[in-house]
Amino acid sequence: MSSYGERLAAVTTARGRLCVGIDPHRSVMEAWGYEYGLVGLEAVARGMVDALGDVVAVFKPQSAFFEAHGSAGVAVLERTIAAARAAGAIVIVDAKRGDIGSTMAAYAEAYLSDGSPLAGDALTVSPYLGFGSLQPALDLAHATGRGLYVLARTSNPEGGDVQSAVRNDGRSVAQGMVDAAIVANEESGQGAVGLVIGATHTDAGCDLAHFNGSILAPGIGAQGGTIQSLAGIFGPVTDRVLPSASREVLLRGPDPEALREAVSGLQLF
Amino acid sequence: MSSYGERLAAVTTARGRLCVGIDPHRSVMEAWGYEYGLVGLEAVARGMVDALGDVVAVFKPQSAFFEAHGSAGVAVLERTIAAARAAGAIVIVDAKRGDIGSTMAAYAEAYLSDGSPLAGDALTVSPYLGFGSLQPALDLAHATGRGLYVLARTSNPEGGDVQSAVRNDGRSVAQGMVDAAIVANEESGQGAVGLVIGATHTDAGCDLAHFNGSILAPGIGAQGGTIQSLAGIFGPVTDRVLPSASREVLLRGPDPEALREAVSGLQLF
Repeated sequence: MSSYGERLAAVTTARGRLCVGIDPHRSVMEAWGYEYGLVGLEAVARGMVDALGDVVAVFKPQSAFFEAHGSAGVAVLERTIAAARAAGAIVIVDAKRGDIGSTMAAYAEAYLSDGSPLAGDALTVSPYLGFGSLQPALDLAHATGRGLYVLARTSNPEGGDVQSAVRNDGRSVAQGMVDAAIVANEESGQGAVGLVIGATHTDAGCDLAHFNGSILAPGIGAQGGTIQSLAGIFGPVTDRVLPSASREVLLRGPDPEALREAVSGLQLF
Repeated sequence: MSSYGERLAAVTTARGRLCVGIDPHRSVMEAWGYEYGLVGLEAVARGMVDALGDVVAVFKPQSAFFEAHGSAGVAVLERTIAAARAAGAIVIVDAKRGDIGSTMAAYAEAYLSDGSPLAGDALTVSPYLGFGSLQPALDLAHATGRGLYVLARTSNPEGGDVQSAVRNDGRSVAQGMVDAAIVANEESGQGAVGLVIGATHTDAGCDLAHFNGSILAPGIGAQGGTIQSLAGIFGPVTDRVLPSASREVLLRGPDPEALREAVSGLQLF
């Protein structure tokens, strides 16, 4: 079994590092000519995979937009994950799950275990309950060759209230996440633990110089981030960044050619 | 339309303040005589509602244990929510969702909108992205007479890394959540914003003296908290606390009499 880090490196080397968000928002369905509902949900999600599955390295379906349609929407998410993986892309399920103990283990089972219909290649997780609370997910990710992206410094301004707060040891909450992820990657040697750091700030807001995993950077496009600004934000670890664009690409659909053109304009190697 | 606070007050006055967690963990299914799977999931979840739906004020189904079975498990969650509400209980969906902007709005649509199959009466939310990021959920909760429970100080020890960190203004992250919830409740007058504060600490870890909503306090039973210890932890706001027990009750099933006896031993008015 290859590790998550190895698989990610292989596909991004071949296809580039752009991550395309699959966010079937109401406005996207309408732009694609669908009424808001399950039919439009599946059309947008599958249309993205059909148009881009062989050129994009990483898809990031946003669970919230599927959950908004109930369990039938979650079933569309399952089919989207399966189609994207079948096309050879890496799938990061953006669900920002987080809990403790056996509950965290149940989320891990859902999103990180072999054979689970909701399991992609990686999962975004939210560490309000502390980095240590994520341990059951780390353990399963390592066991199944999957990855985690831990929220560290997000793209929204109000995130600073939590993420810039200072811990007992003098580090910010965000820096604590970075440092804990470094240790987890050193221990496993797998590069399974990534970070979510918004691409909308003028700097990363934490010291990433020693970071040894991949960095998911949402905010390209609609939120104001640009591919050109990445080096200024991320400096020496810019080549670890997976910049993520969602509506910037989605709203160019449903024409597959236009979608591929949008991706090619944002791609970076 | 009555507000969430009004509905909660009415049902807890009649039935008591105990919240019963519906956590269909593998060990619970096995204790109830089922193999781990969808059949056992539905048997445990529905068995709890059938046995306790007319005596318990608040049920707290834990989404993770349903998601672990994929979209078919999420459909069981939908049926469980519907059955519990039909029995006259309040349902707090424990999903700890959290995101920003239109994504947070999509989670709100899923869990807080009229007509959504996943919508109970309230939702637990995780504020790693800042209290302000929850605004779309606050807005919809107020509009539909539903509630939110914001994680403040959780029952696990590793939560302190985030929750005890100190913000620019000198308050802890947890206290910042408490104070923001107070302001939101003052503005709306609805009491829709509750807090999650673990019942396993020796004190609440934050100043709750002015808190004006309800407090969900997990950790009774398996995690070591007791009903007797609540007053020591919560002091003058103890009567705002909904103590939550899960396995302590679940493992007494499937016998309905035994389940009702377990609840009656933990109940408080």
